[in-house]
Amino acid sequence: MEGDIAEMGKYIGVGLTAIGMGGAAIGVGNIAGNFLSGALRNPSAAAGQTAMLFIGIAFAEALGIFSFLVALLLMFAV
Amino acid sequence: MEGDIAEMGKYIGVGLTAIGMGGAAIGVGNIAGNFLSGALRNPSAAAGQTAMLFIGIAFAEALGIFSFLVALLLMFAV
Amino acid sequence: MEGDIAEMGKYIGVGLTAIGMGGAAIGVGNIAGNFLSGALRNPSAAAGQTAMLFIGIAFAEALGIFSFLVALLLMFAV
Amino acid sequence: MEGDIAEMGKYIGVGLTAIGMGGAAIGVGNIAGNFLSGALRNPSAAAGQTAMLFIGIAFAEALGIFSFLVALLLMFAV
Amino acid sequence: MEGDIAEMGKYIGVGLTAIGMGGAAIGVGNIAGNFLSGALRNPSAAAGQTAMLFIGIAFAEALGIFSFLVALLLMFAV
Repeated sequence: MEGDIAEMGKYIGVGLTAIGMGGAAIGVGNIAGNFLSGALRNPSAAAGQTAMLFIGIAFAEALGIFSFLVALLLMFAV
Repeated sequence: MEGDIAEMGKYIGVGLTAIGMGGAAIGVGNIAGNFLSGALRNPSAAAGQTAMLFIGIAFAEALGIFSFLVALLLMFAV
Repeated sequence: MEGDIAEMGKYIGVGLTAIGMGGAAIGVGNIAGNFLSGALRNPSAAAGQTAMLFIGIAFAEALGIFSFLVALLLMFAV
Repeated sequence: MEGDIAEMGKYIGVGLTAIGMGGAAIGVGNIAGNFLSGALRNPSAAAGQTAMLFIGIAFAEALGIFSFLVALLLMFAV
Repeated sequence: MEGDIAEMGKYIGVGLTAIGMGGAAIGVGNIAGNFLSGALRNPSAAAGQTAMLFIGIAFAEALGIFSFLVALLLMFAV
């Protein structure tokens, strides 16, 4: 048995960051899903809430991108 | 017992990235599900919200594709 | 104790990819479930939303197929 | 087998912090989703609740940023 | 293979505390989301429930901050 055990931990850590991306996608899905549900019930108000939709998506997506950043840092920087 | 322990970690990490893809699919499902639920209640408004549907799916799908990218990077680049 | 420890990790990774397929199935189920719920409330509108149903299922299913692809790559290519 | 076993634990720990980011994204998604759902039902009241939306997002996002901070501390400070 | 195995456990423990932060964020999201949902249905009553919103958020947030505190204690004090 050979190999660097620190590298093993690094690769497992990279894989674990995907859980953060999955959670962020669930959050994004919840925001966009509720927007569509409401927009189809009251289409005339949808245009006025588009800004809020993108602000909400941006906050949730940011956390998924942080996870991706951690994965890239683990793979290429640490 | 032989074999490279770093490679073991790499394969486990690749497997873990699938959790991110699963989470992204839950998010996509939530978006498309809410769209269909609303579109069938108010079909005349569905065409106007199609753009929002695809924007929402794109944001959630992107996080799943990041996970897939991490898996490919782990398997073929690192 | 004999055997290749890298092979052990490979098999565990293949098993973990099934979580991604499970998540994709939850997403697909959410889409089709909402479609059926709406279609049974308003059957005359169902035909017009079938295209959206298949587009939504395709996006969620794709993420499950990526997971399956990762499992196949782990087993036969890496 | 070589390598520092403490470093292995550090990298696995970094990967685990992503679960916190995912959970924070689910929380943010829940807040923004409920805001959009309500704002589209009663658009005239949406402007008055925007402050509450951002306060709620800030509290949930803060916990995701704490997780990110822990990941950065583990990678670069400890 | 060298390194302190106790330190390995410490770092994995730090990573696990992020699950507590994620759970706290889900709780905060549930509280603020339900507040917004109700406040937009009955805006005139929202001001009177703001205190309750902050008390609820404080209790849920406190648990996430305890998790963060445990992470800091593990990293810098123990």
